[in-house]
Amino acid sequence: MKPCIGIGVIGFGTVGSEVVRLLLEGIERPDFGLELKKVADLDIVTPRGVEVPKELTTTDAEEVIESEEVGIVVELIGGIEPARTYILEAIARGKDVVTANKALLAQCGDEIFHAAVEAGVDVGFEASVGGSMPVIRALREGLAGERIERLYGILNGTTNYILTRMEEEGLPFSEALREAQEAGYAEADPSLDISGRDALQKLVVLLRVAFGISASPGEVFCEGIEGITPQDIEYAREFGYKVKLLATAKRVGEGIEARVHPTLVPQKSMLANVREEFNALELVGEGVGHQLFYGKGAGGRPTARAVASDLVSLASRRLSGATPRVGELLDSSGLKLMPVEEAVMPYYFRFLALDRPGVLAQIARVLASEGISIASVIQKGRAEEAVPIVMMTHEAREDAVRRAVARIDELEVVRGRTQVIRVEEL
Amino acid sequence: MKPCIGIGVIGFGTVGSEVVRLLLEGIERPDFGLELKKVADLDIVTPRGVEVPKELTTTDAEEVIESEEVGIVVELIGGIEPARTYILEAIARGKDVVTANKALLAQCGDEIFHAAVEAGVDVGFEASVGGSMPVIRALREGLAGERIERLYGILNGTTNYILTRMEEEGLPFSEALREAQEAGYAEADPSLDISGRDALQKLVVLLRVAFGISASPGEVFCEGIEGITPQDIEYAREFGYKVKLLATAKRVGEGIEARVHPTLVPQKSMLANVREEFNALELVGEGVGHQLFYGKGAGGRPTARAVASDLVSLASRRLSGATPRVGELLDSSGLKLMPVEEAVMPYYFRFLALDRPGVLAQIARVLASEGISIASVIQKGRAEEAVPIVMMTHEAREDAVRRAVARIDELEVVRGRTQVIRVEEL
Repeated sequence: MKPCIGIGVIGFGTVGSEVVRLLLEGIERPDFGLELKKVADLDIVTPRGVEVPKELTTTDAEEVIESEEVGIVVELIGGIEPARTYILEAIARGKDVVTANKALLAQCGDEIFHAAVEAGVDVGFEASVGGSMPVIRALREGLAGERIERLYGILNGTTNYILTRMEEEGLPFSEALREAQEAGYAEADPSLDISGRDALQKLVVLLRVAFGISASPGEVFCEGIEGITPQDIEYAREFGYKVKLLATAKRVGEGIEARVHPTLVPQKSMLANVREEFNALELVGEGVGHQLFYGKGAGGRPTARAVASDLVSLASRRLSGATPRVGELLDSSGLKLMPVEEAVMPYYFRFLALDRPGVLAQIARVLASEGISIASVIQKGRAEEAVPIVMMTHEAREDAVRRAVARIDELEVVRGRTQVIRVEEL
Repeated sequence: MKPCIGIGVIGFGTVGSEVVRLLLEGIERPDFGLELKKVADLDIVTPRGVEVPKELTTTDAEEVIESEEVGIVVELIGGIEPARTYILEAIARGKDVVTANKALLAQCGDEIFHAAVEAGVDVGFEASVGGSMPVIRALREGLAGERIERLYGILNGTTNYILTRMEEEGLPFSEALREAQEAGYAEADPSLDISGRDALQKLVVLLRVAFGISASPGEVFCEGIEGITPQDIEYAREFGYKVKLLATAKRVGEGIEARVHPTLVPQKSMLANVREEFNALELVGEGVGHQLFYGKGAGGRPTARAVASDLVSLASRRLSGATPRVGELLDSSGLKLMPVEEAVMPYYFRFLALDRPGVLAQIARVLASEGISIASVIQKGRAEEAVPIVMMTHEAREDAVRRAVARIDELEVVRGRTQVIRVEEL
C-alpha cells in the first residue's frame, strides 16, 4: 500500500471548503495519497456545499495542529493573528505548512521562513499570489537560476474590474465601485483593495521570491485608484495608454525599485488587455525575455487548486526526505530597496488652469527648472473658468516631479491639485 | 558532499550550447548538483560562444549514451532519426531523457513513453512546447486533477510574426514572409512553420498532456497561413477580430475536437494581442477558469531554461527514488478525436462575385439550404468586374460549410474560390 500524508485544514470558508472538496474527491499520485484528517473553523456548522464526516470537524484549530495524523497544515483563515500563531505552532511541531495568507507572509515572512528552516519543514504559498496562476512555482522552479530583471503585476481583481468598468462604460470611480460590490468583486469594506494594499502585500511576497529580498509593506510606495477619473482614462487613451493598478519591481544597479500605483501602460501591451477581474504577472528575465501569466487571481476554486498543487509538492518532498528549499527564501541577495524618490519614469500630468495666454508657459517653465521635459500636451476647449491641460513627460525623477508639482499647484493661474499618474513603457 | 547527477548532451547547436553554458555556470540545489559529463555533435569544432573542456566533447552520440557517468541524456538534435534511436537506447540503459523534440514526440510519443515506463525512467519535454513558458509543468503539476475543457494556442512564432506584420503594415503574405526571413524569425525553407505543421506537432504533445489522448499529427486537421490576405485581415478588423494561426482543442461530449488553422479571434481577447514572434497558450479549466501563459516560444536561451528546469525535476526525482510519472502520459482517457467535419463554429467567408442584383440572394439561398445562418455582411464599392462579399456566420457545422462553399463556387456569378476562415469566440 502506498503511503498517505494526512492533511489538516484551518479555515472552512470559500477557499477552505474547495480544498476540502478536492481532498475528499481524492488527490492521488503514483507514490502517495493525501488524506483529509481534520478541518477546523469557529463556524463548522454552516453548510458549505461539501459533506465532511462529522468526526473530522472541530471548532478548535489546536486539534488540527496537535493531531499526530496531520503532516501538513493548511492555513486559510487569513489576517495576522491567530494565523501567525497557528502556523508557528505547526512548524514547531515539525509539520509542513501551506498558506494563502499574503498579509501574514508580507508582514511576518522572515519569522515564518526562519522558523521553518530551523524546524526543517517546508512552507507552500502558491495561493498567496495570483490565485491559480502558477507564478511562485514558475519563479522557484522553472526560472530558478534565471536573473529576473523586472516584474509587473496586475495583482488585484477588484481594482482591475473597477478600472475596466470606468474605461469601458465611462463610469466615475464611485459608481464602478458600487457595480463591483453588486457583482461580488468588491467587499463591503473595499479599502484593502482600492488603496492598493492587497496588491502591495502580494508584491512584497514576490520581491522575496523573485529578487531574494525581504521588504516590509511599509517600505514600498503604494497609491490606490480612488483619485482616477474617467477623464484621466480618456486622456490616457488619446496618448495610447490604459490605466492599470500596477505593482512594479525592477533591478536598478545594486538596488530594487518597487512600487504599487495607478500606471499608464501602452495600449498594445499584454497587460493593457487584462480586463475585468483577471490578474496577470509579467516577468522579464535576462535569458528568457518577457513571460506573462494570466488568470483568475481569487475565488474558491482557483485558489484551492493552487493549495492542492502545494500539497502535492510538499507531500512528495516529505516522502523523499529531500531538504526543504525554504532557506532560499530568507533575505540573502544583499539587494536594497531604493527610495521611490529616486525612481525615474515618464509621467502623466493633468493640470487645472485658467484659460489665459501664458499659462502653459508658466507651467512649462517650472517643469524645465526641475529638469522635466515635456513629450506631448493636450489642451481642449476654451472656458471662462479653469480648463484641463494634460501632459506626458519624458523620463523624470520622482523627487523632481514632486517638487515641480508642488510649485505648479501654488501658481496663481492653477486651480485645484494636479493629477499625477506614473507611466511604464513595459 | 552532496550527490551529483551527470548530464550528457547530444546536439551542440543554438539550444545545446545554451544548455551547456547553464550547466558550466552551475545548476545547484540544496540536495544535489548537476554536472556536464559529455557533449556530442557531428560538428564539435565550430565555436559556439561557450568554452567546453576538450575531454568532454565527442562527435559520437553513442559515447554520451554509453557513459556510466551520465544519468540524464539531453537530446537536442531534432527530427525523427537518429534522435529516436538515441533516446530509446538511453532509456534502455536506464537513463532519464530530456528532449525538446516535438516532431519526435508527436510521431513516436507512445513508443518513447512506453519504453520509459518499462525501463522505469522518466522523460522531460517542457522545451518541446512553448519554449520557456512552463506549460507542460503547469498541466502536469499545478493543474494535475483539473479537468481541462479547452485550450487555444499560438504555438508558432514565425507565423505570428508574419501575421503581425501583415496586420500592422498591410503587407501581403509573401513580403511579410521575406521580412520574417530577414529578421531571422523564418527559416530559408519556412514550410514547416507556415503550413501549420510545427504548431500541429506541439498541439499533439499538448493533447497527450492535457487530455490524455495519443493522436498522430496526420489525424488532426491542419491548414497554414499562406492563403491569408491583407484584405482578410482588414475585413476581420471591421468585424472586431484579428487573424491568428490558432491550435485549438476542446472536449465535446466523449470526444476531443482538435485542429490548427488561421482563426478569427475577438480583438479584445488576450490571444488577439499576442504580437510579433511571441507564443501563448490559453487553458480553460473547469475549476480554475481561463489561464494564459505567454512568452518566447523559441530561441536558445528560453529553450535552454526549459531544459534546465526538466533537468532539476528529473534529478530530484531520481535521487529521491520516487516513481517516474511517465505512465500517465500513455493513452488512458478513452477519449476519441472527433472528425473535423463535425466541428461547429462561426465562419468568415469572402466571396468574389459579379456586382449584379440578386447575387447575394443566390449565395444566401445556398447557405440557407445547408442550414448556415448569416450574422453580418460587408459589401463594398461597385465595379464592372467581381467584388468581394464578406460575411460572418452564426455557428455552423464544418461539413455543411464545405458543401455550401463547393456549391457557391460553382455559381455562374461567383468568380474564384471562396475564402473560408474559421472563428473562435474563446
